[in-house]
Amino acid sequence: MATTPIKIISYSILLFITISIANGKVQPPQSTLVFYLQDVRKGPKATVSPIIGINGKVWSYNTFGTILVVDDPITISPSSYSTQIGRAQGIITVTSQDGTNVNIVLSLVFNNAQYTSSTLEIQGTSCQRDNLRELGVVSGTGRFRFARGFAVFETISTYSQSVIRLNVTLAIP
Amino acid sequence: MATTPIKIISYSILLFITISIANGKVQPPQSTLVFYLQDVRKGPKATVSPIIGINGKVWSYNTFGTILVVDDPITISPSSYSTQIGRAQGIITVTSQDGTNVNIVLSLVFNNAQYTSSTLEIQGTSCQRDNLRELGVVSGTGRFRFARGFAVFETISTYSQSVIRLNVTLAIP
Amino acid sequence: MATTPIKIISYSILLFITISIANGKVQPPQSTLVFYLQDVRKGPKATVSPIIGINGKVWSYNTFGTILVVDDPITISPSSYSTQIGRAQGIITVTSQDGTNVNIVLSLVFNNAQYTSSTLEIQGTSCQRDNLRELGVVSGTGRFRFARGFAVFETISTYSQSVIRLNVTLAIP
Repeated sequence: MATTPIKIISYSILLFITISIANGKVQPPQSTLVFYLQDVRKGPKATVSPIIGINGKVWSYNTFGTILVVDDPITISPSSYSTQIGRAQGIITVTSQDGTNVNIVLSLVFNNAQYTSSTLEIQGTSCQRDNLRELGVVSGTGRFRFARGFAVFETISTYSQSVIRLNVTLAIP
Repeated sequence: MATTPIKIISYSILLFITISIANGKVQPPQSTLVFYLQDVRKGPKATVSPIIGINGKVWSYNTFGTILVVDDPITISPSSYSTQIGRAQGIITVTSQDGTNVNIVLSLVFNNAQYTSSTLEIQGTSCQRDNLRELGVVSGTGRFRFARGFAVFETISTYSQSVIRLNVTLAIP
Repeated sequence: MATTPIKIISYSILLFITISIANGKVQPPQSTLVFYLQDVRKGPKATVSPIIGINGKVWSYNTFGTILVVDDPITISPSSYSTQIGRAQGIITVTSQDGTNVNIVLSLVFNNAQYTSSTLEIQGTSCQRDNLRELGVVSGTGRFRFARGFAVFETISTYSQSVIRLNVTLAIP
């Protein structure tokens, strides 16, 4: 009779370990979010603007040292007419001498009902030649406090403008 | 008799679970720190300086693309004459096309006895229209190694200069 | 007889607690990596380039507001002829008014077999007067997903060029 409560405690602990340890590592539960960035590089509706570059060189996505500022709408589907749920705002710097890589510091600033006043903070390097470009999720605010993870950027359409699919995997402990 | 050690082990585990799981999530212990930034935007004692902006536009806190560098004293109370414990040093970029939001990459570099050679690394977006502006704490060094959390910025005085209250919530696993 | 399985469960849990709690804190396993950055500040093979600074001032490592972009080879030993395993690419900003400190946002972009397509994301402040300069590791991608930690920068040679030893301590939960 006396062993019954002990058994219950032990079983609940076993469950906890099953959830949180895989391959000897503590694993907080992960979730995935998918968004789309509407990215316009040229023209009167451009969402990206070059700010500065190396003196005497062309300021472009392929010139070492060029710094650009970005403010892309975030939408729930690839269409630029789909519901907008926030803005992707940050700084892009061409950080490889051969022009291949850009360093990105980006905030996803949400303004929809579900995530209002919440942000995800992204930092990393994007190799512009790759279809899938993985950056780190370094932090979050509001509903995403203490978040960490990674974000995969994929350019899925460049017909009228660039549409970037953003697949975010988060662990929020 | 043989069940006694098992009981002790089970109880200690129960305690651990009580501490570390709330709502099914692993929660490291959290702590809160409060500081004040002495922020002077104009004049010979300015602590913020605009570096560059979009060519042909005014470089200001409300113009998309303006990049500023900041080096604010950190004090222990709102008065600019109170004890200084470090510097808040970083980069501010106006990242919304309507001039509302700035992206901030900021280090809190402490030089007081308690936190000497320690830093907290902050990244996020500040909506300049909001009284309370929450950014992510992405990392730390020295005594703040492995820190994560969030920092709430609140401008509490703009009489002679801006005083920004900084309420930092940290989880250090 | 009935207590045997309970004992086994309880012992395995005890082991887990021994591994993961030190001083009441949850401690994921830590690992250390050592790399070398080949940093050339001047001449035709320079790996760092100043982009902009305060208007009318000299753009240098000791002038508040100067922004530089860096793309250093990462090697496995101090010699610049040793095996290259990636690039350290990022942005350096002089963020202290007295010219002492620089803010660094840096990606370690690996291209060797072991870490291909993996990055470590670094953010922090470097006091240029110190031999050992500690910055935060804020995130990682690929094999370094969910990484956190700290990186100690040490300039070990400035004979023909700067060689910076990078000692990275990581916790990957």
